[in-house]
Amino acid sequence: MTMEEIRIQHREIRKDKPDESNLLFGQHFTDHMFLLDYNLEQGWHDPRIVPYAPLVLDPAAMVLHYGQAVFEGMKAFLAKDEQILLFRPNKNMERFNQSNRRLEIPEIDGDFIIHAIQSLVNVDKEWIPSGKGTSLYIRPFIIATEACLGVRASHTYQLIVILSPVGAYYSEGLEPVKINVETSYTRAVRGGLGTAKAAGNYAASIKAQTEAKEAGYSQVLWLDAIEKKYIEEVGSMNIFFKIDGKVITPHLNGSILAGVTRDSIMELLCNWGISVEERQISIEEVYEASKNNTLEEVFGTGTAAVISPVGELFWDNHQMIVNQGDIGQLSQKLYDTITGIQTGLIPDTLHWTVNV
Amino acid sequence: MTMEEIRIQHREIRKDKPDESNLLFGQHFTDHMFLLDYNLEQGWHDPRIVPYAPLVLDPAAMVLHYGQAVFEGMKAFLAKDEQILLFRPNKNMERFNQSNRRLEIPEIDGDFIIHAIQSLVNVDKEWIPSGKGTSLYIRPFIIATEACLGVRASHTYQLIVILSPVGAYYSEGLEPVKINVETSYTRAVRGGLGTAKAAGNYAASIKAQTEAKEAGYSQVLWLDAIEKKYIEEVGSMNIFFKIDGKVITPHLNGSILAGVTRDSIMELLCNWGISVEERQISIEEVYEASKNNTLEEVFGTGTAAVISPVGELFWDNHQMIVNQGDIGQLSQKLYDTITGIQTGLIPDTLHWTVNV
Repeated sequence: MTMEEIRIQHREIRKDKPDESNLLFGQHFTDHMFLLDYNLEQGWHDPRIVPYAPLVLDPAAMVLHYGQAVFEGMKAFLAKDEQILLFRPNKNMERFNQSNRRLEIPEIDGDFIIHAIQSLVNVDKEWIPSGKGTSLYIRPFIIATEACLGVRASHTYQLIVILSPVGAYYSEGLEPVKINVETSYTRAVRGGLGTAKAAGNYAASIKAQTEAKEAGYSQVLWLDAIEKKYIEEVGSMNIFFKIDGKVITPHLNGSILAGVTRDSIMELLCNWGISVEERQISIEEVYEASKNNTLEEVFGTGTAAVISPVGELFWDNHQMIVNQGDIGQLSQKLYDTITGIQTGLIPDTLHWTVNV
Repeated sequence: MTMEEIRIQHREIRKDKPDESNLLFGQHFTDHMFLLDYNLEQGWHDPRIVPYAPLVLDPAAMVLHYGQAVFEGMKAFLAKDEQILLFRPNKNMERFNQSNRRLEIPEIDGDFIIHAIQSLVNVDKEWIPSGKGTSLYIRPFIIATEACLGVRASHTYQLIVILSPVGAYYSEGLEPVKINVETSYTRAVRGGLGTAKAAGNYAASIKAQTEAKEAGYSQVLWLDAIEKKYIEEVGSMNIFFKIDGKVITPHLNGSILAGVTRDSIMELLCNWGISVEERQISIEEVYEASKNNTLEEVFGTGTAAVISPVGELFWDNHQMIVNQGDIGQLSQKLYDTITGIQTGLIPDTLHWTVNV
């Protein structure tokens, strides 16, 4: 696909903007959206920015029956001098295409989609909140639109980008959360969709999360599906442990999503001279560290939350309190550094940010 | 939900009907559809039959992002004296609610939905094809409609029923198919969504199926995700083996869908005095039987195909030819009996059919 010109159709009457001091995650949407269509004859075509409006989908559209859908999550930040920054959008586009390949969705031109996102954010830039910890969440997604009940890859798709002004992901802010180690339900297994940002992975997680919430936990920690022994992810985030001075994160084993924040944290830690072990880590090892008082920090990482410190893990009747339930020093430093780079407060020596 | 009256809005201009002699699966849809809405205040409400038309969905509708969607598959058959028969619709409604519970979707009143399906089929009864092997495929499904990007259960849903006149599922008819035993990709794992008829399961299967087709096979045979050793399903069907006179089917181990056709076959075989072993069966055992010439029949079972005889299995460089590639006697008898009951040609002593 060439850099085809993006048609822009502006909304006539702008929507009211939500109160910036009380932004819930993913509940408000801006005035416009980006659309791009795919069919076998034309490939991806007709890029356009149009007023945010309902989609018109045949009831037999394959996405509604067979879940052929992938998405990405990114943010735009308001920096000094009215600058608008994106954070490592190329990494999201690489993963978008990894997801596409796994679900037999035609690949997209990442550079063009970044250009489209820049154009869309620019059209709706008044929606970017300016408060601390706020941002404009960007949700690109692709859905299978062909009206057919045969189980196979669709012949038509739509790529859509919507924008949502957001506050902090967790309503508690950067407060350590309580996590239940899930021993019954599974998120993904090797050979499945775990490495793709596919809609079905999230459907699989809902029940476990509801049950954890009812028991007083914010999220679940997912163990591997095979032995129910090794740690995979926390909620919809990657996870890091600091044990006896060493930082450990589960290696990308074929059922874990390769997070952009995960990658950024590993690069930062490497630059700071702190080595990260990417390897299998069992819940037993974490429990042993907890008993020996060497479990120093635990935190989840993801685009929505950036860093989510874990204050307590509950596994098999064992309660593990991490760092007396306080935010760890390294967690806080990583959060401050990444959000600092994202918002232009810290020099971007790693060239991670991209101007809109 | 009480038996609330179903509003009916008839289409003014009827659509052209497709050529009955060339019906592809799930490509044509009738004049009307059934809709039912859910919200927290009213529960399931506003049942209505309306002209088949595109759905209007917010781009942030949760089904498009997190795959919270379940479905069922059923058929209506034209029997003698213009009678219209459904096949065991109560079994589909039981499973619909099992799927709902797994995906945190509010349960439906199965009897009411059967009533709604009967009303809808009646409105569009001219669409039921009359040729041998044809039927009206019924697709009830539920999608999460709330516009929100938080990962949790939606607060609003829509249940939709659409109808599609269909010929035989496999374009080859009741011809034995070639199956590739899948050793890399997985369909589901215990603790996941495998027992639910959830959209995400099908998304996970597309790539394996494409690769099998490219290699000259019709479908894949799924092995368990953990040991890659035990047989689970074939394509989107359950599977049966006849080895040395005995019929064996994988037991419902927590990652296999409990098929209505599977259940019907087990009941028929039991009535015929043929015992069925519901147990773990490894691909190794099937291979050994093939080598010893005791692998007599293999067939898939599902609503769309009813019986799909397997003529060849390919596993780990071993080619296993089943019954010289011909349809087995038992496979044929089961197909004839079930389709006979479904279409009223064979007395329904088991009370499986329900009049529309």
